Amino acid sequence: MGHVISIDVGGTHLRAATYAQDSQIPVKCQRIKSQAPGEKVIDRMLKLVEEIWLDGVDAIGVSSPGPLDPHTGVVMATPNIKEWHNFPLTASLMKHFGVPAFLDNDANLAGLAEWKFGAGRGHHDVLYLTVSTGVGGGVILRDRLLQGYHGLAAELGHVTLDPAPDAPLCGCGFRGHLEAFSSGTGIEHYVAEQLAAGRRSSLSGQPSARMIADAAGEGDELSRAAFTRAGEYLGIAVANFLHSFDPSIVILGGGVSMSGALLRVPFEASLKKRVFHPRYLEGLVIAQAELGDDAGLLGALALARLKLGK
Amino acid sequence: MGHVISIDVGGTHLRAATYAQDSQIPVKCQRIKSQAPGEKVIDRMLKLVEEIWLDGVDAIGVSSPGPLDPHTGVVMATPNIKEWHNFPLTASLMKHFGVPAFLDNDANLAGLAEWKFGAGRGHHDVLYLTVSTGVGGGVILRDRLLQGYHGLAAELGHVTLDPAPDAPLCGCGFRGHLEAFSSGTGIEHYVAEQLAAGRRSSLSGQPSARMIADAAGEGDELSRAAFTRAGEYLGIAVANFLHSFDPSIVILGGGVSMSGALLRVPFEASLKKRVFHPRYLEGLVIAQAELGDDAGLLGALALARLKLGK
Repeated sequence: MGHVISIDVGGTHLRAATYAQDSQIPVKCQRIKSQAPGEKVIDRMLKLVEEIWLDGVDAIGVSSPGPLDPHTGVVMATPNIKEWHNFPLTASLMKHFGVPAFLDNDANLAGLAEWKFGAGRGHHDVLYLTVSTGVGGGVILRDRLLQGYHGLAAELGHVTLDPAPDAPLCGCGFRGHLEAFSSGTGIEHYVAEQLAAGRRSSLSGQPSARMIADAAGEGDELSRAAFTRAGEYLGIAVANFLHSFDPSIVILGGGVSMSGALLRVPFEASLKKRVFHPRYLEGLVIAQAELGDDAGLLGALALARLKLGK
Repeated sequence: MGHVISIDVGGTHLRAATYAQDSQIPVKCQRIKSQAPGEKVIDRMLKLVEEIWLDGVDAIGVSSPGPLDPHTGVVMATPNIKEWHNFPLTASLMKHFGVPAFLDNDANLAGLAEWKFGAGRGHHDVLYLTVSTGVGGGVILRDRLLQGYHGLAAELGHVTLDPAPDAPLCGCGFRGHLEAFSSGTGIEHYVAEQLAAGRRSSLSGQPSARMIADAAGEGDELSRAAFTRAGEYLGIAVANFLHSFDPSIVILGGGVSMSGALLRVPFEASLKKRVFHPRYLEGLVIAQAELGDDAGLLGALALARLKLGK
């Protein structure tokens, strides 16, 4: 008894794991490709869960990219799984397995996981940001995950930092969002644009964020400037989030956050410059996420246990 | 038994009221000037409370301008009462009256009051904004007042909307904040600046926000443009707050919010334009605050009752 199954939905892979009571080390786990010709994603998921099923499963937790509604368990849409359009994900799981299922988006659940099992342990007010292809947020306030009325709270990559009509384009189609400045994609767009405008660099064409980070490490000025700009806007946004949520810890996850001083130095300088009262920074911890690729599974585990009241 | 005393601290007036259990209509209330030569504000406050004291007071709630720490009851500083610098306000009250005292800032408590007694009744996730000389915020999430680790959450007038070094100056000394664009002071600065630059208007010199609203009502183009600009930035900020908090109601209070269509029309158009997913607006209520000048006293009442568990 007391087993929980976690599912981490990604555009390329589905992962699932079974956890025993009070443990965060899986008893069983498995990974498959999300999509295969002639098969529905949900059918692949059901089969995957059957394979790691054990007696005494109390609940299933699911982490998925959004937008989705955690209150109803419906995935409204998600860019990499086209067949899911207002798809009742938790209802499908509950019908098949006869146990309660709980859903939230990947960034919220990564934040929840970092709070329960990672860098945020012991804190009550946590701001988690993943800076990767996009930018996502997860917020814990007084030991509760912030979900919001429609379940769409903490979409922190999509706050406007520059309202100008020519501000950079975001992945969501709007302009001037944090994600447009500080995500890997935002960094790539900026470098490509500067190169096209004739700016000198050791790079050319449309380099990836990884290539830009490497070039910055070798002293390329444009590449360094791209990370400096990303860090500065991240600092402006995080100052706004401190003024809004006033957390005791800021946790940065995602690939771009692992660029070391390249991003971190301009980020911290910008944050200090933009915080409008020094007290926000008193005792504030700025930490790197600890859970890496396991954040989704562990967040889904934490969600299921929270909902079960365990 | 069951009486609560509320105190509303303002730069010019101190108000206090005594409420019986379960009632929001004061049994006694009184108002005096905050400051008088040769007297300390705290001594005037103690005397005021003594005058409305009744048998069976269980607690005192206090609304004060900040910055302050609601967790310790200390007012760090407040522009209009210079003698309060890290002043232990609730400790002074508790020592004198022997009952628990609770403190939070005026905007948070106005939000709390609107949720308990005003426009936000029945909602669980509330965003309250006061747009007046400055801009302040109060947020209720799942039936709890958002206070934050340092008690400095929901300082929503001080989020950066324009990071440019020449963005308009805010009352706090920083630039580009919501308050710098959408407060009465922001509107006044904009009009004065445009007039100084030679823009045509029926106004001249440094007109007040009230005069600008009146001129706008009479068709003055500059005055209308000033409110349109204030409403547009308010819409950008509220879109960001929806993405962050995802409330079911947005309540606007404060003098500038009572300018009718002048502010409301550009605000709502801007909000709709900036919200990055239409679902945030499904069922969202946008309402005018209902409690006016009583919001501070009623918020302090609600805070004291919440803390007493009533």
